[in-house]
Amino acid sequence: MIDKLVEKIKKTKAPIEVGLDPMLSYVPEHIKEKAYKDFGETLEGAAEAIWQFNKAIVDATYDLIPAVKPQIAMYEQFGIPGLMAFKKTVDYCHSKDLIVIGDIKRGDIGSTSGAYATGHLGKVMVGSKSYYGFDEDFVTINPYMGTDSVQPFIDVAVPEKKGMFILTKTSNPSSGEFQDQLVNGRPLYELVAEKVVQWGEQHMGTCGYSYVGAVVGATYPEMGAVLRKLMPKTYILVPGYGAQGAKGSDLVNYFNEDGLGAIVNSSRGIIAAYKQEKYAKFGPENFADASRQAVIDMREDIGSAIG
Amino acid sequence: MIDKLVEKIKKTKAPIEVGLDPMLSYVPEHIKEKAYKDFGETLEGAAEAIWQFNKAIVDATYDLIPAVKPQIAMYEQFGIPGLMAFKKTVDYCHSKDLIVIGDIKRGDIGSTSGAYATGHLGKVMVGSKSYYGFDEDFVTINPYMGTDSVQPFIDVAVPEKKGMFILTKTSNPSSGEFQDQLVNGRPLYELVAEKVVQWGEQHMGTCGYSYVGAVVGATYPEMGAVLRKLMPKTYILVPGYGAQGAKGSDLVNYFNEDGLGAIVNSSRGIIAAYKQEKYAKFGPENFADASRQAVIDMREDIGSAIG
Repeated sequence: MIDKLVEKIKKTKAPIEVGLDPMLSYVPEHIKEKAYKDFGETLEGAAEAIWQFNKAIVDATYDLIPAVKPQIAMYEQFGIPGLMAFKKTVDYCHSKDLIVIGDIKRGDIGSTSGAYATGHLGKVMVGSKSYYGFDEDFVTINPYMGTDSVQPFIDVAVPEKKGMFILTKTSNPSSGEFQDQLVNGRPLYELVAEKVVQWGEQHMGTCGYSYVGAVVGATYPEMGAVLRKLMPKTYILVPGYGAQGAKGSDLVNYFNEDGLGAIVNSSRGIIAAYKQEKYAKFGPENFADASRQAVIDMREDIGSAIG
Repeated sequence: MIDKLVEKIKKTKAPIEVGLDPMLSYVPEHIKEKAYKDFGETLEGAAEAIWQFNKAIVDATYDLIPAVKPQIAMYEQFGIPGLMAFKKTVDYCHSKDLIVIGDIKRGDIGSTSGAYATGHLGKVMVGSKSYYGFDEDFVTINPYMGTDSVQPFIDVAVPEKKGMFILTKTSNPSSGEFQDQLVNGRPLYELVAEKVVQWGEQHMGTCGYSYVGAVVGATYPEMGAVLRKLMPKTYILVPGYGAQGAKGSDLVNYFNEDGLGAIVNSSRGIIAAYKQEKYAKFGPENFADASRQAVIDMREDIGSAIG
């Protein structure tokens, strides 16, 4: 799947993933009205609204991008109906041949991490049968509990040819509280990066990159440069572009000289593009066209920065 | 809810939570057979089996214990039907007046952490209506991303009078890879503990303990003693008793002199008690009675240790 990701990035010339993180406040009124008319102002109504919103954005952008990253929290807040919309979104993206990165930030120990890995990347046995639970292609993982929390994901991912991105240096303002603390003179996130490299050696793609990637926020470009060098064969998932403040020129540090090695996420900047002044001309009715234009502009911004 | 937890611990004299972490391999054959007969060897069949298993254990133990801790990974591995069994379990435990600690180990940034908090502790708005998603009383949180990841949970928990336990020093063998790293001569988990205290000051119960607790594994009793002193008003959730190797005598360090301040989890040791030689006499048909006896024995073991 890392090979497919690299291949699709080369083909689309877009090292971009669309963050499908639908807040109800992003969903245009006409979509909410129809969903509430059909299902009421219920969890089912909310789930229908975000699913229709996602579907329109995927339809308008799938030919331009290699991957999407649905953020499961945005679905989980609507309980079971929300998670059904998550699963529907994953399946629909697969039908459009998109790679799906489940932004789940899970992590636990031993058999418990194994259960998350099974549910999101693998198949669970029920008697003599087996089933995919959510069936993403990649997931994000929180490494605080160490190798015990990551290894079960690798064990499930290897036979499935799927992958993961490990939180290393996150994009948020308080990420430094623990991640930047110096351990023998070096920040903790560098120790995590070294582990990411070790974990990744167990599961390499034929493209030269590992199935075990890292999350490094675009908001810390100097740290990005250090981490890029520490993890030469690691794909970096880069959040923080756009709404969180980072620009194309901040991203140079995250790519290797082959022009590969990073995939940049934008969520709000794309899915709620129609709310920006720049794309206001599209209007709420044509929100998905605004998202398409935002993807094109982002591709251009990053392309001109990384040359 | 921390007040209710303390009150129930005093009343039951059992600082114990039963970890409802059902693996299919724990579920007796007769329960699985019936579930598969009714629903087939499907995700729905698996979900029915773990729900019936949980229900029997809750029925057999609810009068002895203050709280349960369902581990959501064990349900999530069965996809949507599994999560429906999780929700059913939460609701059933509430109907038995048990406090429910959702072991979800979530954590993200800003509005995303807010979405998790809303889904698990709070109510989500849909138009003019609001709904609980999963409605646990406490959740567990991974702090790697710092205050940005924890504050949204506190913001939701305060009006709901609900709480949380922050991973501080976990019970697993590799927990030291990052958590034990020395920062200015002190292990990282102590820094996390200091933050737990700060976070907790925002949300104190009338009982003298905070709604913001910490997870500290029973497998590291010396570290437990240090952390107990660093966080005098913090309730400590202690995993690792029983199947992971810790005994009642290892737990003394986790309690305050008032006999309070800690709640000890046991999962496999209770829910799969009938598989141990000690409880084999009950047989698979009476697995829930074996669980009841295991709770009584655990209460005795801890009670005699903490005096």
